[in-house]
Amino acid sequence: MPQLEPKFLSRGPLDSKEARWKRLVKTNYIDPNGVQRDWESAERQTRPKDSLVDGVNIVAFLNKSTGSELLLEKQYRPPIDQVVIELPAGLIDPGETIEQTAIRELREETGYIGVTNKTSGIMYNDPGFCNSNFNMVYVQIDMSLPENQDPKPSLEDNEFIECFTVPVSRLSAELENLEKEGYAIDARVGCIAEGIEIAKKLKF
Amino acid sequence: MPQLEPKFLSRGPLDSKEARWKRLVKTNYIDPNGVQRDWESAERQTRPKDSLVDGVNIVAFLNKSTGSELLLEKQYRPPIDQVVIELPAGLIDPGETIEQTAIRELREETGYIGVTNKTSGIMYNDPGFCNSNFNMVYVQIDMSLPENQDPKPSLEDNEFIECFTVPVSRLSAELENLEKEGYAIDARVGCIAEGIEIAKKLKF
Repeated sequence: MPQLEPKFLSRGPLDSKEARWKRLVKTNYIDPNGVQRDWESAERQTRPKDSLVDGVNIVAFLNKSTGSELLLEKQYRPPIDQVVIELPAGLIDPGETIEQTAIRELREETGYIGVTNKTSGIMYNDPGFCNSNFNMVYVQIDMSLPENQDPKPSLEDNEFIECFTVPVSRLSAELENLEKEGYAIDARVGCIAEGIEIAKKLKF
Repeated sequence: MPQLEPKFLSRGPLDSKEARWKRLVKTNYIDPNGVQRDWESAERQTRPKDSLVDGVNIVAFLNKSTGSELLLEKQYRPPIDQVVIELPAGLIDPGETIEQTAIRELREETGYIGVTNKTSGIMYNDPGFCNSNFNMVYVQIDMSLPENQDPKPSLEDNEFIECFTVPVSRLSAELENLEKEGYAIDARVGCIAEGIEIAKKLKF
């Protein structure tokens, strides 16, 4: 666990020429009426040349005696100066498959060793604004394995992540409570919670 | 319906000084180890000064004799040069409440007149990359009203949107089919579909 609370100091404009991790681009296109237009958007600079996606989001269930639990993270995010409730996630490294990224990121961020059992299609986070995207990878964690008894994350110097689990059936209520406590909610886990509540309500 | 297919011409770097709609920023902060760091991120320039969010995503159900249908859109998105399957959505105008934005955007993009019945907390689309966020607003559309018999969108000059509905119970399968047909999938609707499938599988 982090020793101190992260502290926001300042935020200011970033010149395109100085940016190393993100960039602005302009797309020129002809619209369906035949009119030529420009559209501004943002991109990560980190996507490998041979990759169609930036990274993965990971849905990892832990089967406990009390029911199925979803593995989540608390992570300080400088772009919004808040600690965010998120799925484990990460960016693809050059040469990796999506599934390899998921297994590696899960191990690094949470310490758990898992096996993938389903990968979604590509999803776009906010396609009017940016090209940022991911595959959702479902990972099974065998809690009976010795290596999963006392999971030890191996975080990078600039990563500060705290793992926790919530009962899947109570995900929406737990997120509401966490938001009241001051945490921000990531849209991927937030929308999964919305979907669960929709299914409950419509009695699927 | 659009007369022509949109046509991608080119994409290139955008200088910060020329950007009118999006921007890059740098956040300076002290991490939990006491180390001072910078973090690059992207933002919309359109968020009103008094607003905590960029806009809304809208979950609108149409109750048909065959069951509940979810209202979706196909929209060409220049940042990824693909037609994307999305929820109705839009940016907040200065002075609007979240709910007013939802009702206005639903009317403009789909022609339907609805009433809001639930608003989620704020969700962040990709908080390691950008501050882009939204509230999810649930809107009820009374299909027996005369104004909802033949809905007429009123789109802006640069908006090209086609509405359609899918049975909520089959959302995940329908998105898979649409992806196979070449459409991109927005993460908000994609993650709702994942949540519905999780609830079905765990028999909530």
